[in-house]
Amino acid sequence: MTGRIEVIALQAAGEIEAGDDLAGLVLAAAPPLRDGDVVVVAHKAVSKSEGRVVELAAVTPSARALELSAEGGDPRMAELVLRESRRIVRRRAGLLIAETHHGLVCASAGIDRSNGPRAGWAVLLPVDPDASAARLRAELERRAGARLAVVVADTMGRALRRGIVGTAIGASGLDALRSYAGAVDPTGYELRTTAVAVADELASAADLVLGKLERVPAALVRGFEARGDGRGRDLIRDPAEDLFR
Amino acid sequence: MTGRIEVIALQAAGEIEAGDDLAGLVLAAAPPLRDGDVVVVAHKAVSKSEGRVVELAAVTPSARALELSAEGGDPRMAELVLRESRRIVRRRAGLLIAETHHGLVCASAGIDRSNGPRAGWAVLLPVDPDASAARLRAELERRAGARLAVVVADTMGRALRRGIVGTAIGASGLDALRSYAGAVDPTGYELRTTAVAVADELASAADLVLGKLERVPAALVRGFEARGDGRGRDLIRDPAEDLFR
Repeated sequence: MTGRIEVIALQAAGEIEAGDDLAGLVLAAAPPLRDGDVVVVAHKAVSKSEGRVVELAAVTPSARALELSAEGGDPRMAELVLRESRRIVRRRAGLLIAETHHGLVCASAGIDRSNGPRAGWAVLLPVDPDASAARLRAELERRAGARLAVVVADTMGRALRRGIVGTAIGASGLDALRSYAGAVDPTGYELRTTAVAVADELASAADLVLGKLERVPAALVRGFEARGDGRGRDLIRDPAEDLFR
Repeated sequence: MTGRIEVIALQAAGEIEAGDDLAGLVLAAAPPLRDGDVVVVAHKAVSKSEGRVVELAAVTPSARALELSAEGGDPRMAELVLRESRRIVRRRAGLLIAETHHGLVCASAGIDRSNGPRAGWAVLLPVDPDASAARLRAELERRAGARLAVVVADTMGRALRRGIVGTAIGASGLDALRSYAGAVDPTGYELRTTAVAVADELASAADLVLGKLERVPAALVRGFEARGDGRGRDLIRDPAEDLFR
């Protein structure tokens, strides 16, 4: 128990391309990694290294995409949102909120044209962010010889509150949801105390340094005792048990 | 631009009572404070020092409170939730989600029996968490001779996602919502990039150390460049513009 954590930006030298060695880029930017370190990596770095980028000029909008963008927005982006989602949750002039195939509810199905590889390109979410986290963790652990955790992060809007916050979409090597069994309220108000979404808190902490610099694909969180081995998908709430929606 | 922040738990020596000098407790636990430091204080410490605690034995439940707790839960807690809220959002056996007079949507209107001052007591939210933050900041700045920011934090459940996360309910000395004007997406997908809820991210970062120790009423975040002077209430979304609800 340290009572102190550090969040350190890990800055890449240049643009990340498909096939790039993400673990190598992280290790080159980080101090020597230790047991318990958490590497929070921006999903864009993961997506780019996995080739999850699309040139908009190569996208042909379907009739449904044209309809969804009739009031504003780029029909080619609408087409990508349709391909990457299982459901359009809400639309408003130029903006689509979608539920992705992973079950994440986010603007434009998490697809972003900003900070893309080149002008006119869009970055998609990884196909399986938990698998991406597990692969990166395995590679980092092998080379660093330390027991690590990895969180794949995006910034997302929320219900009820303004602004985007760093959010965990993938995780490996830690319980994304940490139970504080001893902290359960004796009156039965479990929702407030049952479990803390520490992977989301780590993603938010990392965003405080990720958001500030250009080309920072990752942050190292040191001093947090990562334990367990949960998944980012553990944080997606079943609508049937969602009292806040 | 440091690219590195530290989050340091500030541990109090004992139980906080009404009238206690919260600024003094923070300063006693912290290293010498510097310009730009952010003090994130758990709302319970604020509420206790402001006397916002209630002995349940002294609460007489109204007919409405008895009705709300008919399926479970303590009618005296239900009575407190009614007094502290403008609207009951949802109920489920023993659990009430309420919108507080501040406009926060949270379990039990933010009232908690755990870690109360004594067994059988409950802790309410501060009457005006932004005013609490401003008062604490003024007192800390006066004594420390530094330009500081204060965030009053609670842990809250969310729509769409499981687990509670550190959340800002009051703020002073920083823009709770930080605009990244240069990061606006040229395609018009503003919701993803318009503004980052940095006060919530700071509260989440702090919770990574607050949640671990007993009697940690505050955390110091060093290395984040606090600027501006927004309010915690800036983060409450107007339902009319809420696309995620």
